[in-house]
Amino acid sequence: MLSFSISGSYTDLYEITMSETYFMEGRKDDTACFDYFFRKVPNKGGYVVFAGLQDVLNILTDLHFTDDDLSFLRELKFNSSFIEYLKRFQFRGNVYSCMEGEIIFPNCPILRVEGNIIEAQLVETLLLNILNFESLIATKASRMRYVAGNRLLSDFGLRRAQGMGGILAARGAIIGGFESTSNVYAAQLYRLPAAGTMAHSFIESYDSELEAFRAFAKARPDDCIFLVDTYDTLKSGVPNAITVAKEMESNGHRAGGIRLDSGDLAYLSKVARNELDEAGLHYMKIVASNQLDEYVIKSLTEQGAQIDIFGVGTRLVTGQPDAALDGVYKLSMASGKPRLKLSETLEKITLPGIKHTYRVITSDGLFFGADVVTLTEEQQKTDIMYHPFEAGKSLVIGNFQQEPLLQKVMEKGKIISQSYSLKDIAGYAKRRLLLLPTEYKRFENPHLYKVGVSKKLLALRDQLKDDYKK
Amino acid sequence: MLSFSISGSYTDLYEITMSETYFMEGRKDDTACFDYFFRKVPNKGGYVVFAGLQDVLNILTDLHFTDDDLSFLRELKFNSSFIEYLKRFQFRGNVYSCMEGEIIFPNCPILRVEGNIIEAQLVETLLLNILNFESLIATKASRMRYVAGNRLLSDFGLRRAQGMGGILAARGAIIGGFESTSNVYAAQLYRLPAAGTMAHSFIESYDSELEAFRAFAKARPDDCIFLVDTYDTLKSGVPNAITVAKEMESNGHRAGGIRLDSGDLAYLSKVARNELDEAGLHYMKIVASNQLDEYVIKSLTEQGAQIDIFGVGTRLVTGQPDAALDGVYKLSMASGKPRLKLSETLEKITLPGIKHTYRVITSDGLFFGADVVTLTEEQQKTDIMYHPFEAGKSLVIGNFQQEPLLQKVMEKGKIISQSYSLKDIAGYAKRRLLLLPTEYKRFENPHLYKVGVSKKLLALRDQLKDDYKK
Repeated sequence: MLSFSISGSYTDLYEITMSETYFMEGRKDDTACFDYFFRKVPNKGGYVVFAGLQDVLNILTDLHFTDDDLSFLRELKFNSSFIEYLKRFQFRGNVYSCMEGEIIFPNCPILRVEGNIIEAQLVETLLLNILNFESLIATKASRMRYVAGNRLLSDFGLRRAQGMGGILAARGAIIGGFESTSNVYAAQLYRLPAAGTMAHSFIESYDSELEAFRAFAKARPDDCIFLVDTYDTLKSGVPNAITVAKEMESNGHRAGGIRLDSGDLAYLSKVARNELDEAGLHYMKIVASNQLDEYVIKSLTEQGAQIDIFGVGTRLVTGQPDAALDGVYKLSMASGKPRLKLSETLEKITLPGIKHTYRVITSDGLFFGADVVTLTEEQQKTDIMYHPFEAGKSLVIGNFQQEPLLQKVMEKGKIISQSYSLKDIAGYAKRRLLLLPTEYKRFENPHLYKVGVSKKLLALRDQLKDDYKK
Repeated sequence: MLSFSISGSYTDLYEITMSETYFMEGRKDDTACFDYFFRKVPNKGGYVVFAGLQDVLNILTDLHFTDDDLSFLRELKFNSSFIEYLKRFQFRGNVYSCMEGEIIFPNCPILRVEGNIIEAQLVETLLLNILNFESLIATKASRMRYVAGNRLLSDFGLRRAQGMGGILAARGAIIGGFESTSNVYAAQLYRLPAAGTMAHSFIESYDSELEAFRAFAKARPDDCIFLVDTYDTLKSGVPNAITVAKEMESNGHRAGGIRLDSGDLAYLSKVARNELDEAGLHYMKIVASNQLDEYVIKSLTEQGAQIDIFGVGTRLVTGQPDAALDGVYKLSMASGKPRLKLSETLEKITLPGIKHTYRVITSDGLFFGADVVTLTEEQQKTDIMYHPFEAGKSLVIGNFQQEPLLQKVMEKGKIISQSYSLKDIAGYAKRRLLLLPTEYKRFENPHLYKVGVSKKLLALRDQLKDDYKK
């Protein structure tokens, strides 16, 4: 059996190499602070749904190096006193974060880790790995949710998922607004609704489609969806499904529905709906699958397709075409001093210091379209926010309410935030998305949400830049 | 700690639902045979490198339902006698497969599972999940290997990988021609060479870049690569790296090299190479990273960039933009009869029966550019192969040698094939790729490799089609 436990070695080698240097230099108790943020919304979207926090916090509470990890590090010739130190390693830092399910935007710090420099550095890779991927999928799912109206959405993607990434994808999909998953492992682990129909192979394994449908109806009289495109959707699949559904009625049962998996889903669903209705089978649902994504779902609903449930696979669970959120984890403080990374690419210059982030809210309670990043040491509310990279650009936000986004969720390695169910998290994402004006949610050239910085933060960054230039 | 073990529940719900029906209908000892193949080469390429076989076989030898799996299935209201059956479930089927590392093409059966209908059905999802993903990444890696010449390639992708998919990605990358990975977990699990440098945060955590380089050199005197773009690559990073490398020389050590992570990698690498050489540091290598893929690597090498090692992240481990191989698992026999799926999409009609696949080889020992699929019952060598979907198209292959691709690798659930090291598998992929003419390897409109069928197979399919139409 292939087993994977996310232990200390679930990281890039250089995290361990750097930590060894800190240790050997006597810096193990130096403090450090890192910010997690991303730079670009994937797939040409206007927002990202933040997901993966609970998984990360759960991993951090119990993160350690196993005996196997340590013996591998010995093989790699790490210093034995450092390996002794890792043997007792636990993450005992603090974490501040947005709520899981928050709607987030580029260049705004979403999560902050404070701790000793070794623990804060060592968790970088795993934190990025989980948050980047779950957020990618929650975002992709929310785009499908946005255009699916009141139709149900089910994750059918495990077979095309990137290995065990499919497990996290199922979770991300629920946060983004999906109702269920075909992935039994994920359903079991995260307590998600499991869903599924039947495969072509099932039907082919019988000598006739009718026989296959009857066998399935007998085994699952209260939960049976007939796949109707194995031979010919309209000439064979739908008529056979109707025949068996009527037989079920006479035995006091109700068929669940049919699934279309090829051909013109708009056309076929309308014809099938008509035929089901004419047979008095109004209660039977129509499930559609086959290379769906947010664009296909939008087009199908615009065409008035008679689809009740979309089963989405590849393009959900891989978040294609971008397939990654570019989240990064950047040092902002070390040994009590604010720290900065310069870059020839202006947008890659980081924001130093310990920071708060606030969301600007209109008098109607909606998102105004701006987040502002300030230093925690600032006493006063920020009236004007400045563009982080383009000098001279500013925006007056003084009249609006500002809602703090970050809260302490972990203290000295222990989770102190409330534990939310996935349903709660999905509900939060849904409510927050309702506050985001539609201009940011459209697929074509969505409106650009502004993230600005306070005057003091800008001044600190400029000062550090000058210091480094000297 | 988040732990994942690939058990029986690592599957789509419908595999279990269908299996329950087979069980309840008394069909548990019926036989079935499934083919694994894919339909489209991802990312506009001309071939796929087959990877993941050893992982799949290892999982199958020990596949079972855990107590947790079974109690979850009870919650889902599966029949208790079926759950009792699953309690004792083991995969005891046969598997025939291409060699791992084989170069494979669309619509050609690559792997065949024979077993009872429940075991053969239940393994579908996990087999697709692992083979599709590892093959995707091995293929992506091989495209980078193709243009990287004799430069080294290292997987730096875990932070952007799709969750735990990053573990399999590291393995796939090695099969496709990468030399190392930054992923410590994968290196440990699969015994891969681990590699890494240092991060910007390390440098920023010191009061000066020079101080940071000195600390690193002291801690890792024989294995140190300096990241040079934290403040200014040419004005600060490279000069400081040279200073410290010269100090190391005077202590009898040699710096490993420098890493460029932003800016114009072609230009910067040439200037940096010059400066290193002028300082007598010919032995120092130049590592480059930052959004690399096969196209960027190709362009860099064409520009004469002085790069010795490419560190590739996101675009390797996610296989973007397609991010998935569309492999499918289709029933070809059940209860001793050949089976067929029809479809309105011609290319989705399956190939019935138990089949062999042969690769046509020229007199020079190269791949001729054609694989032929025949029925195992055929006694004679196939002289003419037919297009599987376009009637009338055929190709004479009688003069050429035909090499069988499938061999039995698992018998009654036990691995009977030789166990190959990853180095062996990567070596096989490399040797086989050398036999593939370059037309199939180019990035722009690669030549179309032909997969055809024997006359008897075509006749069997036509006959089954006719039977169903009646």
